Order: sequence, then structure tokens, then C-alpha cells
Amino acid sequence: MTPDEARMLDRDDPFAKTAKLFDLPHGVIYLDGNSLGPPPRPALDALAKTAQLEWGHDLIASWNSADWMGLPMRTGARIARLIGAPDNSVIAGDSVSVNLFKLAAGLVMGGARGVAVERGDFPTDGYIMEGLSQLSGTPFTYIEPGAGVAGLPADIDVLVRSAVHYKSAAKVDIAAEERAAGKLGKTIIWDLSHAAGLIDLKLERDGAKYAVGCGYKYLNGGPGAPAFIYCRPDLADDFSQPLSGWMGHATPFAFKDGYKPAGGVSRFAAGTPAILAMSALYGALSAFDGVDMGKVEAKARALGDTFLAAVSPLGLQTISPPSAERGGHVSLVHEHGYPIVQALIAEGVIGDFREPDVMRFGFAPLYLTHEAVFTAGEKLVEIVRSGRYREPQFSRRAAVT
Amino acid sequence: MTPDEARMLDRDDPFAKTAKLFDLPHGVIYLDGNSLGPPPRPALDALAKTAQLEWGHDLIASWNSADWMGLPMRTGARIARLIGAPDNSVIAGDSVSVNLFKLAAGLVMGGARGVAVERGDFPTDGYIMEGLSQLSGTPFTYIEPGAGVAGLPADIDVLVRSAVHYKSAAKVDIAAEERAAGKLGKTIIWDLSHAAGLIDLKLERDGAKYAVGCGYKYLNGGPGAPAFIYCRPDLADDFSQPLSGWMGHATPFAFKDGYKPAGGVSRFAAGTPAILAMSALYGALSAFDGVDMGKVEAKARALGDTFLAAVSPLGLQTISPPSAERGGHVSLVHEHGYPIVQALIAEGVIGDFREPDVMRFGFAPLYLTHEAVFTAGEKLVEIVRSGRYREPQFSRRAAVT
Repeated sequence: MTPDEARMLDRDDPFAKTAKLFDLPHGVIYLDGNSLGPPPRPALDALAKTAQLEWGHDLIASWNSADWMGLPMRTGARIARLIGAPDNSVIAGDSVSVNLFKLAAGLVMGGARGVAVERGDFPTDGYIMEGLSQLSGTPFTYIEPGAGVAGLPADIDVLVRSAVHYKSAAKVDIAAEERAAGKLGKTIIWDLSHAAGLIDLKLERDGAKYAVGCGYKYLNGGPGAPAFIYCRPDLADDFSQPLSGWMGHATPFAFKDGYKPAGGVSRFAAGTPAILAMSALYGALSAFDGVDMGKVEAKARALGDTFLAAVSPLGLQTISPPSAERGGHVSLVHEHGYPIVQALIAEGVIGDFREPDVMRFGFAPLYLTHEAVFTAGEKLVEIVRSGRYREPQFSRRAAVT
Repeated sequence: MTPDEARMLDRDDPFAKTAKLFDLPHGVIYLDGNSLGPPPRPALDALAKTAQLEWGHDLIASWNSADWMGLPMRTGARIARLIGAPDNSVIAGDSVSVNLFKLAAGLVMGGARGVAVERGDFPTDGYIMEGLSQLSGTPFTYIEPGAGVAGLPADIDVLVRSAVHYKSAAKVDIAAEERAAGKLGKTIIWDLSHAAGLIDLKLERDGAKYAVGCGYKYLNGGPGAPAFIYCRPDLADDFSQPLSGWMGHATPFAFKDGYKPAGGVSRFAAGTPAILAMSALYGALSAFDGVDMGKVEAKARALGDTFLAAVSPLGLQTISPPSAERGGHVSLVHEHGYPIVQALIAEGVIGDFREPDVMRFGFAPLYLTHEAVFTAGEKLVEIVRSGRYREPQFSRRAAVT
């Protein structure tokens, strides 16, 4: 592929309009939206309005007048469309870790025996299941990577599984896994952190029952943005979860002793929602207004292929599958991955590094062009070939890489 | 008391400077800082900087360059000073509900048998203990209001108790309760939601072991601001808690299977912290820089007494104790409490209502004067005497009151 050929792919880009919502710093090619999405302007605008007017001027009245009370469900509704979930099946709030706990602990309270995570899946998923196991006594185990529900031992009923792997970007066939789970009598909780806002998810069509996801990656909700929970509507009204805080109560302002859950997915609310943070996420989601998720996924794949074409002269190993089986990022292996990524960042191409030797580059379709991605790939080739990543300043480890 | 006498109390107000940090709307007397504190300017400034520069411009690099990684502990350090807690004993994050769960569940994992909450204490505290009981099998019970640890049944080891009651504002003698707990072999988790930033708390001196608190009331951190956890340092390193998310891991970015908690109170972090929301809280806490909490508590009591003096012509019943035993608010009983509070709000005096008949007025010393509080009291007298709260628009119930 030549730079001109990359540019040709940007003609008729259906996302030329959404790209204008993002004010990325001049000279930066941002390939880390899979880790922290940049702010679309409506996110910053919503945040400023909520902080200055709703909080600063209208004060406590905003719980009603600005419908802060309804914000977790309104935010959930915007997310529902992006993941193919029915109305009133998604609520925003808390973190992925806490939401995973709610779902898995609730299943255990409902009689499920045992929880599992694939080895090497996103760490917090395993850590949280460990904690649940220690508290509840239900067994916890890691199973083999990629094993899926078929790999669950007989005494383990629940699998927490990423729909797109954080490191390799391998995408799971949700429908097939749910069919297998149905046959085996197992239950899956999907972690959509690296999938929501990128993959053309069809949770309802594919029979997904439970899922959590992240607000700060492809949804661009801001650092540590509220996460979300999806629960299939027919399962929600019978679902009990132990983080039964007052905001999930049927009548929180009656101030009654004794928990009575709200109807449906609202019962997954726990404490008072983080309104400032959620207003940014709610605003950010408007960048997806009218956007076809099928086109988002298709462009993400194509961008990944453009990048791979640009870096092909290096002949690097990739741990990512071909584009048809891939989420929104591409991971390349290099023993000097850390300093190479730092050298790239110094030249305006922002990707990230995952231990021990993985360089990760994310391709968020809402604001990236093929031209930019090709240029980023060329820079990587240059930096590796020139050896300038060997300069000492690139080897110093920062706390977060 | 006359208006002039009230004004006299404002001479030599040690908080004349902090009041200038708050831009309350013109004509508003805000007596609801016990429910949602208004924004001090540094909160809005910090939020704008974090959103626009750190997130918008520096993007993912801000985890290091703006020390987002350290923000939960830096925020905790600012709170620690206000509650008389030692260095490195407080971390900000999640909600009060979720943090209560971490502490109580951790105690149960460590062998504690049974959890209890006083009947009529803040509802979420009981709801969360119910959830913990259902998940872990440990017994849960409500005990009599005001009974304290002495009221715990033999098979219940843990009491969750508000240091200041959300409704009556009754203040608990933490030192005495901790002494009693020590003798009885019981453990208290303090809920400081209505105490932190108002009462001159001395957790270390008083022997408190565990506490949670709210960021959005007297700490002015914004709607749904991150909450906090206090754990006495000598207890933290042996404490396991089940919401063991990656941010509480000793090396979160090693991405290793198997949870290994970070040292000390850092292990109470769960998922990715809500950086936008926490930046507002961190900024808000700077309004307390150099502030003597003894003077804060003294002024709050005095303001409450000024208000009670102003409303004394009505002869209303109060469910709040005298100022020496009171937190930062005063609760008055009136069968028409709801429309009266609405009529007051319509005239710029913002208090709140708690079922079934309690009008609650909070006195945050950082931005209120005796003159304003006296004026508010006079308005209440006027509204009750005139009967204008009977106008129909004041009876319509909003979702949150």
C-alpha cells in the first residue's frame, strides 16, 4: 500500500462528520482510544453545563430539574443501541470491576455454583471472581485461554469472558458461545470493555443474558468514566444482587428500612451515581448519534489492515487475528516494545505497551483516517529501522505504560 | 435574637475568606449543603483543567504526567486531615454503599460473625448489609436506634453506624463507642457521611478502626462525588476485601493472573477511579486548606442556634438534639413540612424534606453567615404564619425532595 492508496480509502468516509467533534492535539495520531478515548466536544460541553449550571446554579434541585435521577438509565439507553440491546436493559454506573461483582454475586445468590475466567483475560475479571469466591465460598478457577464455556469444569456454572481480548483483540462469536452455554447449562457474563462502541454487537439477537462494559474506551466517556451493566429484561425482575444500595431501591426517598429492589435493570444501581462523570459519558455518547455500528466495525478492521500494510516491511509477529476475527486494535510483538512505543509517542504517535513485549495500536473509526494510520505505521517502521528507540530516555518505565 | 444581633455574630468570622470561594446564586440562602454541597471555585477549576487539558490534550499520558494514578490517595490525604486520620489511612473512590460493602465483607472474610445497623439509620447502610448477608450467609439484623455496640446481639460482631444521624443530626461519641466496642469485642464501621467536613473528627485519637464517608455533602465534591474509606494503618496490611479490582493490585500493570493486594489502604481501590469526578472533589477540598475543623464545628453549632432562635416564635418540635450533641443540621417537625419546604425554596431558601414530616436545614460554615441564616429563619416563620405554603403548586411531589 502507498500513502496515496491509504488516502483513497478516506474518500467517502462515513465518519468525516464525527471526526470534526474531536479536537485532538495538533500533530498527534492517537492510536490509544482502546485504552482511553479522547473527548468529543459534546462530552466537554455536557460536563461544563452540568458542573457550572446544574450543580453550581441549580444546586440540589437538579436531581429533578436536570433529571440527574434518570441519568443512569438515559445513559444506559444510549449504550443499549450501540450493543444491540433492548430498551431498558442497560444502566450506567460504578466500574467494570464492581459491576462484574454485582452480576456474578447475584448469580451465586441465585444458586449458580462456581465462577471462572480464562487465564490471561483482563486481570480485574479474575481478581473480582477471586474476591467473590473468598467471600461466598463458591469455587473459582481459571480455565484455558480461548476454551470458552466448553472448557468449564462440571462444578463451575459461570464464565466471565471478554468479547474482545484486551491484548490480542481476538473477537468471540457471542451467538455460538451462548448456544453452547445453553446446551451445557452454563451462564456467561460478557465483558464488553474492548467491544462496546467498536464491534457491531447484537446482544439481543445473539442471546446474551448478562454483560458489563467500560465507558472510557471506545465510548469516549472520560478517564474512569462510569461503566455499564446489561441484563436481559426477562431476567432482571428476578435478579437479586448484593450491592443493594439505596439508588437501586424501589422508593429510595421513602427512607425505609428493608431493601426492595426497583423494577428491571434499575436494581443494579448501588450508591449515588457519579453525576459529573456520567454527564461527560452521556454527552460523549451523542457522538454516536445516527452512526451505524456495522460501519464502525468495518472501518476499524480496515484501519487495522492499513496499519499492518504500512508496517509489513518490518515483518513483525502479531498476536492479533486477521481482521474478520479482530476487535479494534492490533498487537505487534517486539522484544524492545517498550522503548519503541515511547519513541513513537515522542514523535506524536500514541499507542501503548502491554507486558512483556506487546505494542498495542487501537483504531477508533470515529476520528481516525487511513492516511493518519498509514503515516503512523510508516513512523513505526522508521523508528525500528533507525534504532533511535535505543536512546536512553525511552527506556525509563513510567507507572502506567 | 434580632437581625442586628445575628449580624454581630458575623464580625470576626474566621470563614469570611472561604465564603469568597463560593459563587452561590444571587438571592439564594443555601441550607442544603448537608445533602449536596455547592461548588467552591477550585472544584470547577480543577474539573475544567482535568477535562480540557489533561484528558483533552495530554490524553492517556495523564495517568503519569498528571498523576491520575495517585489521585485517589492524594484526595484521601486531604480528607484524612479533616477527620483526624493519620497519613496514608484514607483513599477516595467508589460510593459510600460500595465502600461499606468492602469493609463489612472484608471483616466477614476475616472471621467476623454478623452485621447490624440501627433501625432508622441511613437506609443504604442497612440495604448493603442485607445484601452482604444474603451473599455470605452471615446474619444481619437491625438494632434499636441509639443502642450502639451495647445493643448488639451476642452473635453479631459488626455494627455500621452513622457518626451524625442523617435525619436528627444526633452526634455519636466515637471515643466512648470505640471503648465499649473494645470491651465487648465488637467492631464498628463508622459512616461519616454527615460528619466529614463538619464535625471536628479525631478518628485516630478516638480509636476508630474503620470508616466510610461521602464526598458530596460537606466536602462539596459534586453530585455523586467519589466517597472515601478510612482503615487504621495497623489493620490495613492484613485486610482482604472482595471487590479486589485491578487498581487495588500491588502491580496493576503487570497484568498478572492472581490477585495480590497493594500495601495499606490502597488495596481498597477496585476499578479504574473516576478521575473527572475525583478531580472536582480534590479541588473542592482545597477550600479547607488551613481551616481549623474545631472552628468549623463550632460555627455550625452556632449557626444552628441562630436559626432556632429565628424560628422560635413558631414553637415547632425539633427532633435534633441541643447544639453540643448535634451535627451540622437542624430538623424541625411540621405536618405540612413538604409544602412549607417547597414554598421556602420558591423564595430562595433551600432546605429539604425527609419523610414523613421532617424539614431539614443544614448549616455549612464555609459559606454561610449568621445574618443569612437568621433571614432564612424569619422567612420560615413568615411562610408558616401566612399559610402561603398552602398554594397548590407547593404540594406536588417531585421525585427527589
